[in-house]
Amino acid sequence: MRVYLAGPDVFLPDPHGRGAALKTICARHGLAGVFPLDTPDHIPEAWRALPLPQFIALCNESHIRSCDALIANLTPFRGPSADVGTVFEIGFMRALGRPVFGWSNTAADFFTRTRMEVGATPDGPDRWRDRSGMLLEDFGLTDNLMIDSAMLASGGGLFTADVAAPWDDLSVFETCVAAVGGRLEIERKGKQALLF
Amino acid sequence: MRVYLAGPDVFLPDPHGRGAALKTICARHGLAGVFPLDTPDHIPEAWRALPLPQFIALCNESHIRSCDALIANLTPFRGPSADVGTVFEIGFMRALGRPVFGWSNTAADFFTRTRMEVGATPDGPDRWRDRSGMLLEDFGLTDNLMIDSAMLASGGGLFTADVAAPWDDLSVFETCVAAVGGRLEIERKGKQALLF
Repeated sequence: MRVYLAGPDVFLPDPHGRGAALKTICARHGLAGVFPLDTPDHIPEAWRALPLPQFIALCNESHIRSCDALIANLTPFRGPSADVGTVFEIGFMRALGRPVFGWSNTAADFFTRTRMEVGATPDGPDRWRDRSGMLLEDFGLTDNLMIDSAMLASGGGLFTADVAAPWDDLSVFETCVAAVGGRLEIERKGKQALLF
Repeated sequence: MRVYLAGPDVFLPDPHGRGAALKTICARHGLAGVFPLDTPDHIPEAWRALPLPQFIALCNESHIRSCDALIANLTPFRGPSADVGTVFEIGFMRALGRPVFGWSNTAADFFTRTRMEVGATPDGPDRWRDRSGMLLEDFGLTDNLMIDSAMLASGGGLFTADVAAPWDDLSVFETCVAAVGGRLEIERKGKQALLF
């Protein structure tokens, strides 16, 4: 089972080392992890002429299409929300109808994080606005409702916990991977059962 | 031609007024704007039992699937990047293979904004890292490369300019809408030409 490993992990000081570490954990649970920096099996010749960012983007889209599920690192990145590149990829996989899983090394909910990071003033009961007058989402979710709901609606899942070193610790990731492995194994057995 | 109007505009103090204003501009250019707060034509009975955030998310996904194109408000939201709910929807529409357009009321590129907002220190030639050691993207793009590239690869487009009131001014939006209207009109004529 191929699983795309979405996340801002590509921006870490040693992204290849990180990719290898994530894949080792995937393998432990019967999954083949696909990291954004991997070279796709097939690259159309025409892509070689593209500017680097477009080439990278098309490779990542191709990786996602080649995978059975997506696991996203939702640890807040430069603000209260997950990295937008990661979120783009979650939306992409959601539209393909395949399961999307998320993990975050922060347990505080989205509303709490937003209020802490950008500040908020009350505007009626249970309504808070930031300095630009923009409403804060207050549903007790992990991030914007499109993200949390995609995990639920796709039959995926969400795993969060506070850790001491949010960009190093992979224990929450492994909890997530174990769940994905279990879930995809059930599907595989179900399909086998249909065959016999 | 139906166009989904993705953006953090739903968080403004008068979201329904904003939706109406966006739709008026769309109509001026021959487009039917679909705003996230609109009620979908068909809502499955089972959705009524869902918690509100999941219900909203499924309605938005349904809206996107019903549209011919997507126009995203990419004006930076609570950080250097666009609103993550908007970015999720861009990824969703990109996977459907339909054109995605974006507009932003900020002209500064993603690298410049990120460096200004989170700070950055040099790490070799043309490489900058934030305080967590995470690399900054430096491609001169409007936002994360997945977002800019989706606009290009889908045959959409990107429109940015600095304006005095980023959450009020709709002139950049109208420039974008005019381009979408023209583009979809060309497609319509092309399809008609194939019929005769």
